[in-house]
Amino acid sequence: MFARYDMGAEAVDELKQCPLYGDRFEIRRRTVPGFKDLGVAAKKLIEEEGCAIVVALGMPGRAAIDQVCAHEASQGIMLAQLLTNTHVLEVFVHENEEEDPEKLAQVCVNRARDHARNAYWMLYEPEQLSRRAGQGIRQGYDDAGPLGQPRN
Amino acid sequence: MFARYDMGAEAVDELKQCPLYGDRFEIRRRTVPGFKDLGVAAKKLIEEEGCAIVVALGMPGRAAIDQVCAHEASQGIMLAQLLTNTHVLEVFVHENEEEDPEKLAQVCVNRARDHARNAYWMLYEPEQLSRRAGQGIRQGYDDAGPLGQPRN
Amino acid sequence: MFARYDMGAEAVDELKQCPLYGDRFEIRRRTVPGFKDLGVAAKKLIEEEGCAIVVALGMPGRAAIDQVCAHEASQGIMLAQLLTNTHVLEVFVHENEEEDPEKLAQVCVNRARDHARNAYWMLYEPEQLSRRAGQGIRQGYDDAGPLGQPRN
Amino acid sequence: MFARYDMGAEAVDELKQCPLYGDRFEIRRRTVPGFKDLGVAAKKLIEEEGCAIVVALGMPGRAAIDQVCAHEASQGIMLAQLLTNTHVLEVFVHENEEEDPEKLAQVCVNRARDHARNAYWMLYEPEQLSRRAGQGIRQGYDDAGPLGQPRN
Amino acid sequence: MFARYDMGAEAVDELKQCPLYGDRFEIRRRTVPGFKDLGVAAKKLIEEEGCAIVVALGMPGRAAIDQVCAHEASQGIMLAQLLTNTHVLEVFVHENEEEDPEKLAQVCVNRARDHARNAYWMLYEPEQLSRRAGQGIRQGYDDAGPLGQPRN
Repeated sequence: MFARYDMGAEAVDELKQCPLYGDRFEIRRRTVPGFKDLGVAAKKLIEEEGCAIVVALGMPGRAAIDQVCAHEASQGIMLAQLLTNTHVLEVFVHENEEEDPEKLAQVCVNRARDHARNAYWMLYEPEQLSRRAGQGIRQGYDDAGPLGQPRN
Repeated sequence: MFARYDMGAEAVDELKQCPLYGDRFEIRRRTVPGFKDLGVAAKKLIEEEGCAIVVALGMPGRAAIDQVCAHEASQGIMLAQLLTNTHVLEVFVHENEEEDPEKLAQVCVNRARDHARNAYWMLYEPEQLSRRAGQGIRQGYDDAGPLGQPRN
Repeated sequence: MFARYDMGAEAVDELKQCPLYGDRFEIRRRTVPGFKDLGVAAKKLIEEEGCAIVVALGMPGRAAIDQVCAHEASQGIMLAQLLTNTHVLEVFVHENEEEDPEKLAQVCVNRARDHARNAYWMLYEPEQLSRRAGQGIRQGYDDAGPLGQPRN
Repeated sequence: MFARYDMGAEAVDELKQCPLYGDRFEIRRRTVPGFKDLGVAAKKLIEEEGCAIVVALGMPGRAAIDQVCAHEASQGIMLAQLLTNTHVLEVFVHENEEEDPEKLAQVCVNRARDHARNAYWMLYEPEQLSRRAGQGIRQGYDDAGPLGQPRN
Repeated sequence: MFARYDMGAEAVDELKQCPLYGDRFEIRRRTVPGFKDLGVAAKKLIEEEGCAIVVALGMPGRAAIDQVCAHEASQGIMLAQLLTNTHVLEVFVHENEEEDPEKLAQVCVNRARDHARNAYWMLYEPEQLSRRAGQGIRQGYDDAGPLGQPRN
């Protein structure tokens, strides 16, 4: 509810375009008051509703305290993963990443969709990930690209 | 006891105005010495007294060390959630959010009541939450609002 | 051993003055090398010696690294609580709270005794705590007091 | 995928040159979207695929937020180790360690290979580690070397 | 291996001079690549080899990132203790504590030996610890000493 863009809708739409949607997997969506509620919500989706992977979407605000809260939210998501042996992809768009609201909305769209696709790949096409190892892939922005080889 | 406003009384009053109060749920209240005691108190309410959700209210002070303590308190609340698969809504009003004591008291009232209502919705009306996804909702202050759509 | 005042002796003396001492409860005391050893010491007191509550006393030093260590010590105490469903009251007096050694010693005395009393109340007189909710109580110093009511 | 150099390929190549490769051990490799996914991936490799040790490779970016994320990723790797009683060697090359991409690539190569070799030694030649105790060994750069003896 | 002084050798030597060495206890020593590997190594020594206490020795480097890593290493050691109900004495000498290598080596010697002795006392002579409560004891340097009494 805190987030200023409905990233969940983007992630759901991306997943619905994946080849195996409806056939091999379906989607559960939960909305929580703030991103600190994501960790336990993810754990419940996994343990109580049988989800095989979770995409956790949130938007930390601009204030210094928001950064601390984002760190705590991330620790909760991390712990949820380790206690369930299940991946939870954290998709945070920080409100201060862009000044322009339209650009910020675009980052929300891109990052939510990129990570929804990653979640799909992790379950059904892991070779898509290994093929991209070391390529400097960025979610939400242009990729940084690979470094090239060391000189000697 | 550390908090300078009785936020618990506000939360209880809000919950008593919820439609199913007395019928589907009742309220347990515990007071602890400081906010670092909230994590285990919440866990005990869940595991020993059967609470289905907890609202944890506290007021971190102005000093730098209080921010570190608030972070530790938050980590405890996070862990309580993950170890119980139960939501614990953290409601902290930082003493330095407002200089004016009356305004600070108002933030206490608003945030305690907003989160008490969220707790109710999470259990009995989750569609109230999903309806507000991506709307930039703020507890204790005016909402930030949604971003609008990306340009392209 | 690191602490520069024997806060444990103060806490023990305060507890011995509580009404039910010797009748309903007795006291176990352990000394550890540094405050990072408090977390596991508290957990062992609870799990191996049957303690119903623990008061953990320590004095972080003045250096920047001491603040990090205090944070780690606090995280350990927090975890001890959550893994045992038992309150461990953390009573830290930071060496830099007061320049004057006599004043610092006085803070040690007050805070150790206030929290020892809190521990007693939590077990035997919880209404003493609920009566003080929202009153801005401080351990070791004068209370901050309540905020008053919001204007509207 | 985030990393800008395929450190995994270097680690695998180094391990294939170890004496017992193919005879006593084989290699499993997994690619994850970002380094925050390493902790649970390592835990799954250990618990679900029977790995006896894991080398976790990642490249934190230059931004301040990347440092926080790296800290969270490290905490996840730490927790994976403690929950499995299995070593997970964290091999992070921070993008800001070197300005020159070729030098940065060289650090990636060296550190990935050094830690892959460490992983091998931990399982099959622990005396290689004890022999190097207190020698100021650095992975990815020249060693710092021992301090020498105290004067008195 | 990262440490620039063989603190383990000092700790072992100190323990060998303790009255009950060889009679009531023996010593196990493990060397790990870096201090982030100490937490799980300690846990394995306790759970897999039956150690009753562990002394974990490390030397964080001078860089800012080393301080973060030291914090993570400490969290791992803390968690190892809480998951095993066993003390693990963390003995870190920060490379930036002294500029002069000989003085730094002396801190390594003193601190390793002081904590090895503490470990012995915790198991066999706990009254040595309680006698030193509140005395401002420092490991590796001169003691800070007690504060004296509050004025009133």
